[in-house]
Amino acid sequence: MLQRVRIAVDCMGGDLGPAATLPACQAFLSSHPHAELLLVGRPETVGVARHWPRCTVIEANEVVAMDDPVEVALRRKKDSSLRVAINQLKAADGIPAAADACVSSGNTGALMAVARFVLKTMEGIDRPAIATVLPNRKGTGTTVLDLGANVDCGPDHLLQFAIMGSALVTAVTENPSPTVGLLNVGEEVIKGSEVIKKTGELLRGAHEAGLVNFHGNVEGNDIFKGTTDIVVCDGFVGNVALKAAEGLASMVGEQLKAEFSAGWLSKAAAVVALPVLKRFKQRVDHRRFNGAALLGLRGLVFKSHGSADAYAFERALERAYEAARHQLLSGVQSRVTAAVSNLPASAAQPA
Amino acid sequence: MLQRVRIAVDCMGGDLGPAATLPACQAFLSSHPHAELLLVGRPETVGVARHWPRCTVIEANEVVAMDDPVEVALRRKKDSSLRVAINQLKAADGIPAAADACVSSGNTGALMAVARFVLKTMEGIDRPAIATVLPNRKGTGTTVLDLGANVDCGPDHLLQFAIMGSALVTAVTENPSPTVGLLNVGEEVIKGSEVIKKTGELLRGAHEAGLVNFHGNVEGNDIFKGTTDIVVCDGFVGNVALKAAEGLASMVGEQLKAEFSAGWLSKAAAVVALPVLKRFKQRVDHRRFNGAALLGLRGLVFKSHGSADAYAFERALERAYEAARHQLLSGVQSRVTAAVSNLPASAAQPA
Repeated sequence: MLQRVRIAVDCMGGDLGPAATLPACQAFLSSHPHAELLLVGRPETVGVARHWPRCTVIEANEVVAMDDPVEVALRRKKDSSLRVAINQLKAADGIPAAADACVSSGNTGALMAVARFVLKTMEGIDRPAIATVLPNRKGTGTTVLDLGANVDCGPDHLLQFAIMGSALVTAVTENPSPTVGLLNVGEEVIKGSEVIKKTGELLRGAHEAGLVNFHGNVEGNDIFKGTTDIVVCDGFVGNVALKAAEGLASMVGEQLKAEFSAGWLSKAAAVVALPVLKRFKQRVDHRRFNGAALLGLRGLVFKSHGSADAYAFERALERAYEAARHQLLSGVQSRVTAAVSNLPASAAQPA
Repeated sequence: MLQRVRIAVDCMGGDLGPAATLPACQAFLSSHPHAELLLVGRPETVGVARHWPRCTVIEANEVVAMDDPVEVALRRKKDSSLRVAINQLKAADGIPAAADACVSSGNTGALMAVARFVLKTMEGIDRPAIATVLPNRKGTGTTVLDLGANVDCGPDHLLQFAIMGSALVTAVTENPSPTVGLLNVGEEVIKGSEVIKKTGELLRGAHEAGLVNFHGNVEGNDIFKGTTDIVVCDGFVGNVALKAAEGLASMVGEQLKAEFSAGWLSKAAAVVALPVLKRFKQRVDHRRFNGAALLGLRGLVFKSHGSADAYAFERALERAYEAARHQLLSGVQSRVTAAVSNLPASAAQPA
């Protein structure tokens, strides 16, 4: 029997706000009979869901804007839907947390800062990381982290990302020993910056200690080849690589469209090719991969893309649901605890 | 009247070697009546070109393999086609250099190391950088540097890249004031690592001094949007972003092909759509963008992709030709000299 999973939803976040989140919640509920949702937002907006089955409406009278500085989200808007949604993950004085996971399309900086403040990081983790799944040729998906939470990382942080990423993939795919690649400018051990070379050493040590299944260095194209299940990098590199890939995909899509609209003969060809083009579009639709995990916190927080529509937001809800159902939180915590007790102190502590 | 341009060609480099370089040289010569080529390689291989018009064959009896360590290329293979081709750029004792530019598909590490050893870096430049043009939505092309020569960069190096990249774009496109973007994880000035924030300060100073046209921070997707003419980043980030984009493009191409081959109906659609698909393929063909400039050396060296075929290699020859014809070398040198004399010493010297 499936256990019940409760997800707190920041209904006001993202560019579209409730116009995307509410239809997504409705669709999600109808396809997930074991899910319950806590819908957080302005009463006049989320009130509409008061009588939906397996739904609880939680009032929050402020909204973190997409361009609000972190300080505003953190110190001034204490009654924001983003903050109140995260609050649902906090247990207190023997009372269990109201929700198992939380999903928001709110701005990344604010979400990370508030989540870190409210939930705190796990024992053994210096910095939480953002992990997402990117499509690959194998069709399995490559989990990449960090994607922007940490722009300056030491080798120890990258090792922690490898451990948390492994826990994430193990929890969701039930692969006990997913492979980890270290993003670099070449496969050879001698390649890369000083931080990367030192990280390689730590990862080889962690591999020998049975804590991660370290494959070695990988390059940017390996993300989409699916060479390893997990690719570890600092948040600066991960963010740039992700956005460069998004930018290229969107340019290529536009060019394909332009070629099929150039003249009546091309337009006629487009009509004939329509079913194929539709299938192709579905296949490369980045919305399918929406929903990044904030790992290393004492609670499961999922970040949906700021521009997510209802379809994309529903995918993020599904990711959070699967993670909670597979006990991701305790999975991460036990991997991290094993690492802390099995690695030399220098490798488990910040540089 | 167009001046004569002489290009030294490493005919043995790359995965395909002379099978790609010789046909490329032949095609290039017939479309560039003012070009002369110095074909460097094993006599039994390049000898075939001895009677081609505007061609000189230069013997070199060794070949740097694609997987040769830098040390082997540098210290042991002194008679390699790669080294002898670069030697043609060296002037000595009042005798001008034999060639105006040099092109090789040889391995990047070896090419950079040998070029640096033989030619030396320019006054005011600590580290040469690799610059290439990537396609963008505007159709103008975005010049990105560095792409892998320097994995650990300080703010001063990134400033030097901005200056050299500006000189490259000015020389080739005749735009006197191309815009420069600093690759970052967000547009705001407060974003990014410490190195990037400090680089932003230096670039704003250089902008005020009239040395570069600094636009501000850009993100990964801006490369393909064409937000700025030039995007500056360290070699680690540039290399990962470039390879991630290549990997995604190749995955998308494969998926498009797969969809058009799935069943007879799709195959029939492919036949109808063939002219459109062909045009699309040409448009996204990365071979068109082959040929990266090694900037900051006392000679014009162009790096062709290791896997370049004849079509791609010919594009690299064209890039080298255009750069030489537009006096890129003196263009870079005069921008760098202006920077050295107009910026505070701390900004023109290594961190």
